[in-house]
Amino acid sequence: MNKKTVINNLGKIMSVEAVFMLVPMLVALFYGEYRDTLYFGGTIAVTIVFALLFTRAKGSSLNPRDGYVIVASAWLIISLIGAVPLYLTGAFPNYISALFEIISGFTTTGASVMPEPGVLGHGMLFFRSFSHWIGGMGVLVFVLMILPMENDSSMHLIRAEVPGPTAGKLVPRMKSTSRILYGIYSALTIALVIVLKILGMPLFDAFCYAFGTAGTGGFSICSEALGVYHSNAIEIAIGIGMLLFGINFNVYYMILLGKIKDAFKNEEVRVYFGIIAFAVVSICVNIYHMIGSLPDALRLSFFQVASIMTTTGFSTADFATWPQFSQHMLVFLMIVGACAGSTAGGFKVSRVIILWKSFISEIKRAINPKQMMPIRVNGSVVDIKTLQSAKVYCAVYFIIVCLSVLLLSLNELDFTTNVTAVLACFNNIGPGLALVGPTANYSVYSAPSQLLLSLLMLTGRLEIFPMFCLFAKSAHDR
Amino acid sequence: MNKKTVINNLGKIMSVEAVFMLVPMLVALFYGEYRDTLYFGGTIAVTIVFALLFTRAKGSSLNPRDGYVIVASAWLIISLIGAVPLYLTGAFPNYISALFEIISGFTTTGASVMPEPGVLGHGMLFFRSFSHWIGGMGVLVFVLMILPMENDSSMHLIRAEVPGPTAGKLVPRMKSTSRILYGIYSALTIALVIVLKILGMPLFDAFCYAFGTAGTGGFSICSEALGVYHSNAIEIAIGIGMLLFGINFNVYYMILLGKIKDAFKNEEVRVYFGIIAFAVVSICVNIYHMIGSLPDALRLSFFQVASIMTTTGFSTADFATWPQFSQHMLVFLMIVGACAGSTAGGFKVSRVIILWKSFISEIKRAINPKQMMPIRVNGSVVDIKTLQSAKVYCAVYFIIVCLSVLLLSLNELDFTTNVTAVLACFNNIGPGLALVGPTANYSVYSAPSQLLLSLLMLTGRLEIFPMFCLFAKSAHDR
Repeated sequence: MNKKTVINNLGKIMSVEAVFMLVPMLVALFYGEYRDTLYFGGTIAVTIVFALLFTRAKGSSLNPRDGYVIVASAWLIISLIGAVPLYLTGAFPNYISALFEIISGFTTTGASVMPEPGVLGHGMLFFRSFSHWIGGMGVLVFVLMILPMENDSSMHLIRAEVPGPTAGKLVPRMKSTSRILYGIYSALTIALVIVLKILGMPLFDAFCYAFGTAGTGGFSICSEALGVYHSNAIEIAIGIGMLLFGINFNVYYMILLGKIKDAFKNEEVRVYFGIIAFAVVSICVNIYHMIGSLPDALRLSFFQVASIMTTTGFSTADFATWPQFSQHMLVFLMIVGACAGSTAGGFKVSRVIILWKSFISEIKRAINPKQMMPIRVNGSVVDIKTLQSAKVYCAVYFIIVCLSVLLLSLNELDFTTNVTAVLACFNNIGPGLALVGPTANYSVYSAPSQLLLSLLMLTGRLEIFPMFCLFAKSAHDR
Repeated sequence: MNKKTVINNLGKIMSVEAVFMLVPMLVALFYGEYRDTLYFGGTIAVTIVFALLFTRAKGSSLNPRDGYVIVASAWLIISLIGAVPLYLTGAFPNYISALFEIISGFTTTGASVMPEPGVLGHGMLFFRSFSHWIGGMGVLVFVLMILPMENDSSMHLIRAEVPGPTAGKLVPRMKSTSRILYGIYSALTIALVIVLKILGMPLFDAFCYAFGTAGTGGFSICSEALGVYHSNAIEIAIGIGMLLFGINFNVYYMILLGKIKDAFKNEEVRVYFGIIAFAVVSICVNIYHMIGSLPDALRLSFFQVASIMTTTGFSTADFATWPQFSQHMLVFLMIVGACAGSTAGGFKVSRVIILWKSFISEIKRAINPKQMMPIRVNGSVVDIKTLQSAKVYCAVYFIIVCLSVLLLSLNELDFTTNVTAVLACFNNIGPGLALVGPTANYSVYSAPSQLLLSLLMLTGRLEIFPMFCLFAKSAHDR
């Protein structure tokens, strides 16, 4: 491993973090929150000093292992730094809780340890939501867009950070790719801010909720969350917004290029909408008797399905009081997640498709051993490497979930709480069921458990491998 | 597919079932239960008539697909027939419940819908437990031992029926392999009967519990189960027995051949005992404060771990009242299961080893893409096909568990009950947690759900593929 290159890159990332922390600092200043402004300013100053020290190290180009190490350690460092201003406000019982909160932000999980986020000032609330927006598309993708880096190196980084079984390379140059991605992302986000403003949301709130929706995060700015606006239109707008940000961004790029037909043929997107339609209808039928009105049942069902499937985690209803079928369906959607190459977490629809097709092909092979059938997604054959990774991913996913639930059980909370807490954090969703349900928060867990859940969020966001490479590496260097 | 061959083989299997149903019939006769004797006799007579009709079809040799079809339909047919005498007793509300009970028997699950098995006569109780013994080593393996069949054909059948990622072929001729397997199996079972008798169990009970232990089944013959004997020695003897039957039978064969050193080097067996040791100690520490005595805590922990890990499902304590960590640990063991090539169900230790090593190799490959490392278990390289299957198995396992839990949720029972019911049935364990805990039974579920759980037991016992091939086939023939 090229240590100097890694340190140099981490320095760059820290300087970018210092820059984007200026935005919430200015918000705090604008609202006259001088103490918070000072906290941001201090953190930014110290970060810049370290960034300058780090970037003095000069190294050669990256290899794939360095890519994983940089991505994993970058996410750790930006979280460790990001937790500082939150911790300084005194709203958190300890640094671990503040760290949980900001990791939840960057990983777009949206799980909170705060019963009432409203105790924070505007600057801090903006920072929390802004972290969703930055983390959604990827911190590294953001860095690549701004700073000069070799094309090869950036490919390794993107591969390690962008979710899904295949890294999306839209155009040959990675810098252009990241600019296109952030361009689409920003345009959609601004459109959502405008829609929310028109529907009657205050501008500050519109920004916060648009960031949460775009990053499929899920932080609210007060304990009543979206309920405070008493507007079905806002609920539906955010529901549609979540669904749109759960789609593979390549599809938008294709639409931009005018290949609209190809875009709608995308297999993953079709399956994604198929699952959503099925879930919305079945939950609507299931909750109808307790809601009483069909439009309301449909709206609540639609919003909750969109929120969970895209791993956003906003909630407009306490679905922990819904019939068991609806709750189980939501847990199922938690696991599936949305499309690869979107800002959403979870297992990803495309992986489910690949695994299902592998299974069918395995049965066919059992019936007729001579037959060898390639697995196709979107009409093109999935290469062996991707296939392998998807299967290993599933196995490791399963192992990590089991072991984490086992560790959490030391808190003596019930099975449903532990399983859904692990799934909700690992898949970057936010709320689970029972004690971590939509009206509750994660303060029920001890600090070590919050740390475990924070690591799960990071591992889930980076899709397992980078985090493990980080530890595998250090074990190797000893 | 060669329909005539399949039908011919099913006929053979039915005739074997008729023969082994003679045993419980004689037991019923011995205890003067004439009504039950008649039920058995009638079922046997009808079975023989159909068996004769079926065996008149003559066909050519088998291909692998036929193997899967035969195994899957054989298990369905013996279950459908086996449920008849139980249903006739009138102790079950409907035929589905009786079918659930006998499938639970043959698949060595041991889940019951009966609050008090003691209402059945000796013949029926013997039949239930005997079904564990037959199902444990495999109905087809039993058939192969008795009836003439080509070597090639039998290999296909064994491959489809024997649990674990690789089919154990001890000696070139399959008939000899099945004789060796049943020889070891019978010897160990008889040894256990003698030990239990010496420890003070009545002979009838000793037979029933030895069958349940050998097949890693778990049916009791009264609602107090083993508690009725008030004997720690019996508890420990059965605990050790369960562990021994959870070991790969190839290991016993190696010991028989004098290769004791090789037997103890077996990686799967080592990991198996490693997991057991860890689980026993940690649960013992966890429950110590509520039990009060260290020997008692150790004994209870040991028995429950052995029972769940080997997927037997006998219980001597209501572990649903234990601390959460212990409950979670047991659920974790449920998923892992025991060794491949044993009578136990579950995911199998060897598959966990293979998946873990695949994961490590995937990380190594991510770090250094040029490196290609073969995966070794027991010192020899695991071939690509086995590797592939293990990974696909894991993925499909996960999908089936999720979908089944979703379907069960229509009963409006809680999440813990549904998840553990699915795991306990799919892994052929028996008791779950909450409403299907060790002191409860599966009568809480509706008939359609019992049917789903029965199919899960069969799918789990036959390790997914044969059952799906059966359905894939019929869809293909239309």
